[in-house]
Amino acid sequence: MATRDSGPNLQLKPIGHVENGIKPRQKVIWEDIESRLRLDEQWVEGLEGLEEFSHIVVIFWLDRPKEQEIPLKVHPEAKEDMPLVGLFATRSPLRPNPIGVTTVELLGIEDNELTVRGLDAFDGTPVLDIKPYLVRGDLKRDASVPGWLHRLWGETDEEEPA
Amino acid sequence: MATRDSGPNLQLKPIGHVENGIKPRQKVIWEDIESRLRLDEQWVEGLEGLEEFSHIVVIFWLDRPKEQEIPLKVHPEAKEDMPLVGLFATRSPLRPNPIGVTTVELLGIEDNELTVRGLDAFDGTPVLDIKPYLVRGDLKRDASVPGWLHRLWGETDEEEPA
Repeated sequence: MATRDSGPNLQLKPIGHVENGIKPRQKVIWEDIESRLRLDEQWVEGLEGLEEFSHIVVIFWLDRPKEQEIPLKVHPEAKEDMPLVGLFATRSPLRPNPIGVTTVELLGIEDNELTVRGLDAFDGTPVLDIKPYLVRGDLKRDASVPGWLHRLWGETDEEEPA
Repeated sequence: MATRDSGPNLQLKPIGHVENGIKPRQKVIWEDIESRLRLDEQWVEGLEGLEEFSHIVVIFWLDRPKEQEIPLKVHPEAKEDMPLVGLFATRSPLRPNPIGVTTVELLGIEDNELTVRGLDAFDGTPVLDIKPYLVRGDLKRDASVPGWLHRLWGETDEEEPA
């Protein structure tokens, strides 16, 4: 099926990059990691007022890993005891469009540099966009997830049915 | 003002499109709108297990409006009584990289077609990615926003200081 927009590629351009010293394959607890988002100077004016938000949504380019093959099914976090599920049921970085979306705590803004906590992106990752986290819209108090995710998060020992 | 200039670009390709009959400039309450996301058939297997999530995050291409000029400061929702803030402090569709990110209620999946409620995208909008909404990570119970947003949402009549 051809849709109006499915022909030519859609193009993006980084507005900045991530600085945190974290290299691929380094084991870290992302929730605790502080990163700086250094934006190109031309965008500084566009940050005005953002400091009033406690959280922001960072849109970034998943430039690692470099694999070209995208498995349609994956074990979440590559754990064999997790069920084999579709890639869209996970936040796997191997996606048709390698766009990362992570909500982080905004610690501060100085000129073109944002300091955030909880961004799961390696050092040098291109930043594509920054959005305010809206308690109306982004915060879904009644959201639920599958049992295997609670198990992955260590909240329950319950085994998946074989 | 800044423009979307070209350079060494990162490229995207739609994985499907939005069907909801909503045209630009039509006045709608997006929260109530049901949309279908029709994905290309090749991605069907990647949806397995997604039906167990109550909410998903839809990543889409903001192909309307067509303006090339990106104002660095905007009045939220084009309302003159809202403060003039940086574009990154808003969810304005006019952004350096026109990527929309919206959390929606997942009503059902049938083959390559997802039915969702609350997607603020016009009919025909290219879909770039679908991610599960994770209560650990995406749900920030302690998030806060500026006073002007509560006023925009009609939760308070308090005036901004002039």
